[in-house]
Amino acid sequence: MDALFDRHQSTLASALKAAQERGYWSAYPETPSGKIYGETAKDDGLASYNARLAKPFDLPDHPGTGKVGTEVSPFGSALGITYPASDASTLVAASQTAAPAWAIATVKTRTGICLEVLTRLNHLSFEIANAVMHTTGQAFAMAFQAGGPHAQDRGLEAVAYAFAEITRTPAQAVWIKPQGKAESIVLQKHWRVVPRGVSLVIGCQTFPTWNSYPGLFASLATGNTVIVKPHPGAILPLAITISVIRQVLAEEGFDPNIALLAADAPGAEITRDLVENDAVRIIDYTGSSSFGDWVRKNAGEAKVYTEEAGVNSIVVAATDDFAGMCANLAFSLSLYSGQMCTAPQNIYVPRSGIDTNEGHKSFDDVARGVAAAIDDLLADPARAAGVCGAIANPATLGRIEKARSLGTLIRDSAPINAGDTRTATPLVLGVDADQTNAHEEERFGPIAFIVAVADASDGIVKAASLARRKGAITAALYDTDGTRIEDAVDAFCAAGVNLSINLTGGIFVNQSAAFSDFHVTGANPAGNASLTDAAFVANRFRIVMWRQPKAA
Amino acid sequence: MDALFDRHQSTLASALKAAQERGYWSAYPETPSGKIYGETAKDDGLASYNARLAKPFDLPDHPGTGKVGTEVSPFGSALGITYPASDASTLVAASQTAAPAWAIATVKTRTGICLEVLTRLNHLSFEIANAVMHTTGQAFAMAFQAGGPHAQDRGLEAVAYAFAEITRTPAQAVWIKPQGKAESIVLQKHWRVVPRGVSLVIGCQTFPTWNSYPGLFASLATGNTVIVKPHPGAILPLAITISVIRQVLAEEGFDPNIALLAADAPGAEITRDLVENDAVRIIDYTGSSSFGDWVRKNAGEAKVYTEEAGVNSIVVAATDDFAGMCANLAFSLSLYSGQMCTAPQNIYVPRSGIDTNEGHKSFDDVARGVAAAIDDLLADPARAAGVCGAIANPATLGRIEKARSLGTLIRDSAPINAGDTRTATPLVLGVDADQTNAHEEERFGPIAFIVAVADASDGIVKAASLARRKGAITAALYDTDGTRIEDAVDAFCAAGVNLSINLTGGIFVNQSAAFSDFHVTGANPAGNASLTDAAFVANRFRIVMWRQPKAA
Repeated sequence: MDALFDRHQSTLASALKAAQERGYWSAYPETPSGKIYGETAKDDGLASYNARLAKPFDLPDHPGTGKVGTEVSPFGSALGITYPASDASTLVAASQTAAPAWAIATVKTRTGICLEVLTRLNHLSFEIANAVMHTTGQAFAMAFQAGGPHAQDRGLEAVAYAFAEITRTPAQAVWIKPQGKAESIVLQKHWRVVPRGVSLVIGCQTFPTWNSYPGLFASLATGNTVIVKPHPGAILPLAITISVIRQVLAEEGFDPNIALLAADAPGAEITRDLVENDAVRIIDYTGSSSFGDWVRKNAGEAKVYTEEAGVNSIVVAATDDFAGMCANLAFSLSLYSGQMCTAPQNIYVPRSGIDTNEGHKSFDDVARGVAAAIDDLLADPARAAGVCGAIANPATLGRIEKARSLGTLIRDSAPINAGDTRTATPLVLGVDADQTNAHEEERFGPIAFIVAVADASDGIVKAASLARRKGAITAALYDTDGTRIEDAVDAFCAAGVNLSINLTGGIFVNQSAAFSDFHVTGANPAGNASLTDAAFVANRFRIVMWRQPKAA
Repeated sequence: MDALFDRHQSTLASALKAAQERGYWSAYPETPSGKIYGETAKDDGLASYNARLAKPFDLPDHPGTGKVGTEVSPFGSALGITYPASDASTLVAASQTAAPAWAIATVKTRTGICLEVLTRLNHLSFEIANAVMHTTGQAFAMAFQAGGPHAQDRGLEAVAYAFAEITRTPAQAVWIKPQGKAESIVLQKHWRVVPRGVSLVIGCQTFPTWNSYPGLFASLATGNTVIVKPHPGAILPLAITISVIRQVLAEEGFDPNIALLAADAPGAEITRDLVENDAVRIIDYTGSSSFGDWVRKNAGEAKVYTEEAGVNSIVVAATDDFAGMCANLAFSLSLYSGQMCTAPQNIYVPRSGIDTNEGHKSFDDVARGVAAAIDDLLADPARAAGVCGAIANPATLGRIEKARSLGTLIRDSAPINAGDTRTATPLVLGVDADQTNAHEEERFGPIAFIVAVADASDGIVKAASLARRKGAITAALYDTDGTRIEDAVDAFCAAGVNLSINLTGGIFVNQSAAFSDFHVTGANPAGNASLTDAAFVANRFRIVMWRQPKAA
């Protein structure tokens, strides 16, 4: 029963060590290379993806009374895949039926199964990349990395934290209490891990796997059954995931309904029914703050872990690499057309400009520098497509349209190729800090504001205050003044937002690496949890004891 | 600044080891002995307590616009002590003012201060024992143990868990990501612990220190400021506690308002105002389920940790020590007149009786055996007073009165000495299992039901089901059948209740030892948290990062 655990034990050990030390480590190679994944892996993955299209998705023995599925690739055509559909109570009942055997499985059994699932998902990374690409609009390279290996790393991280948390309490101990000259009292104590119950994972459209795997694997590894409710526009990546989990569960003799897919149709979502079901005891949610607020208020006694939305800011105070800074910002603004929860929206620049290695730059110089760097980055349409991908949700295009009038146009948004209806390069607007109605609202997508502030310190104060009030997942600072950098660290720490300082070259504020960067702090309105820390896993199970006298 | 940490480091190390191994360990001796605490400690403690009476409690620099205090000893006279009184917003504002310096103090500084506080509280154990005795009605020995050293152990346990949780993430790490043949990306990363904010601890009357110290010290050790809201009937033990914390804080250069006392008057409690204050981000609550329900629903975004109420059960299936079992049950029912959250209420006995070392015993034999053992235990009034103590709240006496008619009288409740108005020995009633209106409600105080069930397995099923539905903190089983014991373990584990099996002699189902027994599982309605596990501390703070490029 522990063969899977034994097979993957060294991966787990490395993951535990990495999570402890928090240097760079990854279990699943991020390079979509034939040398790593096999020379035919890329073609095979595409073929597997294509074979999924225009037919029902096969999930043996999955409950379902109907079929749903209306996914359309942001790059073009409808996927034409249908998935089994059930109402919430049917799914919850099936989950509860599957629960007892999973609850009493050993930590090694559950951990082994989770690690085997992750390994198989890794082998499917090319197929998953295509699935992610054609549901989210991510360009292929990003869909591969973020949807495949990076998501798998985040899943492994959750499994490792769960394993550490479960095993830190011994399964048994002998308790010997001295009684002076009388005989000691001796008790044999046993502790058992008891999962909370049914766990619900609510996915988002833009990162269906990366954002769902932590909660999914944390709940599975701690003995809970899981119902995954994908965004109706991005079901396929999670359907493949659930399919693999069910396959391994069945092979190991478990009821595959330990992992269920709650596919639904736009406008007829079953999310609220699932959230309000009393048997659902854990909810992982990624999505808008408005629905997140509803989930938090209507979850009853369920433990709720959210990643919601915020407004991410960058403060430009000074730099000794003006070109490198502009190039770095350009990439951060353009990557996946600003549809990352980590993408910056506001760039605070002193009205009087900044000191740089290229001499003093006025506010307009900085704004133009960033705009020019975006133009450079996206000059070649093929490269632009590889950076920006496509727009996942047409509403984002409407948002760009409306945003144009909110400030001075510094750089206009445009399709990558004339006539594209689902691509959009960054819109960059200049505003004054007091135009808070413009820049202090989250405007999801490729929309950025260069915000004029009194000076660098004012920018730090305003950005930190905004993070504290509206939430933020990332913040960045460009500065050369050590004292001001320390003040910024204090301000952003107090606002609960992770800060990147003076990034240039091939590392970006948007990027959050498993085993090192805690994604979301849980300390401001952008989310109430962090991927992955002890608090993310420790309350997914409880410890129950039995004790009895033992002969001394 | 770390002198206090250095002074107490070995205690912390032992606590961490004990919490990991979960064998017997205690930092603070539970024996109220002159040899341990000093030959004059008992007299000095009483003198200190007496010196507190009939005057304002001195809390230098504590905010307060008025005075409150109406404590009356269950053993007699009014305490006559008044405490500074403020409204909720004044207390929260003072707490917030004190917060920033505490938030950025190092883990060693905060841990050192907490450990020094616990040491000083230990030296005040005799004074605290008198304070606990005369607010709760506990007999002196219990007031000393539970109110003093055992509470201090629970506080230390929380500090140890907080320390472990904070220090498991390094303060910094170097992240080196290989880039093939190109230069590696190297980031220096730093992590800072950021507390949640203002923490509110809502105490209960029966165990003002034991139940409050875990949340109080967990919040303090993780950098939060704390407002302690005692039960209006049991302020003094927590006022002494707050006084010591403020003294150590002031000595170490901190604003003493990091720890505040929210004393209020019966009928004019400020608890709701505190709970509803948005700045309160953590709430630890011990008390009734009805108010607990209100707290959970009205706490907004605050993290809430509760110990509420339930109905604790014992199943008597068989025993090889009938006399020992009856004596053990008698003590569990009598101790502090059933006013412990861990005291049993229902004793399930097969209608056809049980097999014992004394031969078959009918249902009535078992009932009479328990009743006779109570009579034996409490035959001597002085000993009875030492076991039962006094009734904390007169409402409990009314509850006994009303309960008499709920079943067949097996043993009547009575004052320990004729004329006592605040003592009551256990009332024991016989009921059939189907009289659920009688025994399936929590009836706090010295009220017990011997419940007739079809057989032992039926008793196990009914007791576990009740725990799952209404909550339970403890359960016990007497049985000699290994298979049935295993089934009971499964049933009570699934119901989230800690189970004691075949206890006889000097160990009782009511007892929960720090560093070994997790008190409350958080897995049934009796509470949503456990004292103390990782989940109890890990979400009281968040981790925030800053990162910057580092030369390779």
